[in-house]
Amino acid sequence: MQKMTESLTPKEVRLKIRKGEITGQTSGMCPGYAQANLVVLPKDLAYDFLLFTQRNPRSCPLLEVTDLGSPYTKFIADADIASDIPKYRVYKEGELTDVLTDIHDIWQDDFVAFLIGCSFSFEEALLEDGIPVRHIEEGRNVPMYNTSIPCTSAGVFHGNMVVSMRPIPHEMVPRAVLITGEMPRVHGAPVHIGDPEAIGIRDLSHPDYGDMVTIKEGEVPVFWPCGVTPQNVIMNTKPDIAITHAPGHMLITDTLNTRLKY
Amino acid sequence: MQKMTESLTPKEVRLKIRKGEITGQTSGMCPGYAQANLVVLPKDLAYDFLLFTQRNPRSCPLLEVTDLGSPYTKFIADADIASDIPKYRVYKEGELTDVLTDIHDIWQDDFVAFLIGCSFSFEEALLEDGIPVRHIEEGRNVPMYNTSIPCTSAGVFHGNMVVSMRPIPHEMVPRAVLITGEMPRVHGAPVHIGDPEAIGIRDLSHPDYGDMVTIKEGEVPVFWPCGVTPQNVIMNTKPDIAITHAPGHMLITDTLNTRLKY
Repeated sequence: MQKMTESLTPKEVRLKIRKGEITGQTSGMCPGYAQANLVVLPKDLAYDFLLFTQRNPRSCPLLEVTDLGSPYTKFIADADIASDIPKYRVYKEGELTDVLTDIHDIWQDDFVAFLIGCSFSFEEALLEDGIPVRHIEEGRNVPMYNTSIPCTSAGVFHGNMVVSMRPIPHEMVPRAVLITGEMPRVHGAPVHIGDPEAIGIRDLSHPDYGDMVTIKEGEVPVFWPCGVTPQNVIMNTKPDIAITHAPGHMLITDTLNTRLKY
Repeated sequence: MQKMTESLTPKEVRLKIRKGEITGQTSGMCPGYAQANLVVLPKDLAYDFLLFTQRNPRSCPLLEVTDLGSPYTKFIADADIASDIPKYRVYKEGELTDVLTDIHDIWQDDFVAFLIGCSFSFEEALLEDGIPVRHIEEGRNVPMYNTSIPCTSAGVFHGNMVVSMRPIPHEMVPRAVLITGEMPRVHGAPVHIGDPEAIGIRDLSHPDYGDMVTIKEGEVPVFWPCGVTPQNVIMNTKPDIAITHAPGHMLITDTLNTRLKY
């Protein structure tokens, strides 16, 4: 699938997704272009969530918010987010009730869509600098953990930060900090380096989400704020309805990763 | 006044302001600490305005939003923004109706306060680098201009960007870009360098707000996004009520300017 899409533009890939010709994960598609997490909420929760992202920019770096009732993004991509994402999850009162490949049939006039930056963007920058990204090497999902780091509450939304972990050779840690620190719109610099227990992670070998990866001799576990944080925080409030992308099934934007630096 | 307050902490200065012992401009007070612009709006406009700041982060870099109905900031300063600012302007349907030194008497349960970054912070960084800031040298207000650069609309809010202008010796322009570019939460890098007409400014010698300053031989007019933009955009919509700080009479925060870099 990756090979098939390598020469296509983001717009062309989104059209294939829209037609149902691509339904799988988007990892590795359209190298160089940012991919985004999706959260759809009804308007009555949108203000509190928008404020939550403002107060927690590290875990919730907002790339775009659609106009009230509109499924169309205008800035990061010329996209219809109700059909241009391969797979959606529908949650009612915090419970997963449906997995769909198109959400136009259930779209509501009071929906607002939030597009949130994704660590795919900074992983590309790390690899370009020769810094290994273990879960990519091992063909796994990045390991993610609940932490004791509180998010800043906003209205009904509150909870702790979720982090992703990448083992980094100790001599490469400063460069990994600098490279990701230059990209605040896709989570930015690590939130913690080295001691899982200091941020409330008791067992590194059992991630709360994703898969464990090998930590080699001479490597340090480095923790970045993770885009699962906003999804977790939303589900905690058990909203009547919320829709997200399915993990790994992202919106491929028209925005170059290099544009997320400033 | 500046001398009197030089050794005081931001908290101590805010208390003097709260008691009415300081009612003048805050320029130069508490060097090293960020000062912030204030906009207060009723809740029914708050979502659109919050979205406007998200879509226009260069002209509206949001430092904090208070909880619904609360005049207390919790993050950038331990402040009561209804009394800790020396002077307020009250606008009804877009018209200035009152200038007050305390707004508790007119505070409403549905008010939300927005604190927006201010170029005072990056001017300090320019001066520290030996780059002249002409309006400070000449004891004037910074010259500001309406431009033809459209802001990105959000709900009821739309309009063009207002910019501030500082003449910079041409050999110092790159450093001025780098230094301010490191501080995106206080407007960041310039939006334009050199040609006023290219951004719709016809007569540099007649600023739309503030005072003209001398442009010397070998200097280039450099334009930064300006915090007057959000005030202008709000007044265009003629809201029932809106409250702002009076020009130059800012909230002095507990946040060091250096903390606005990342």
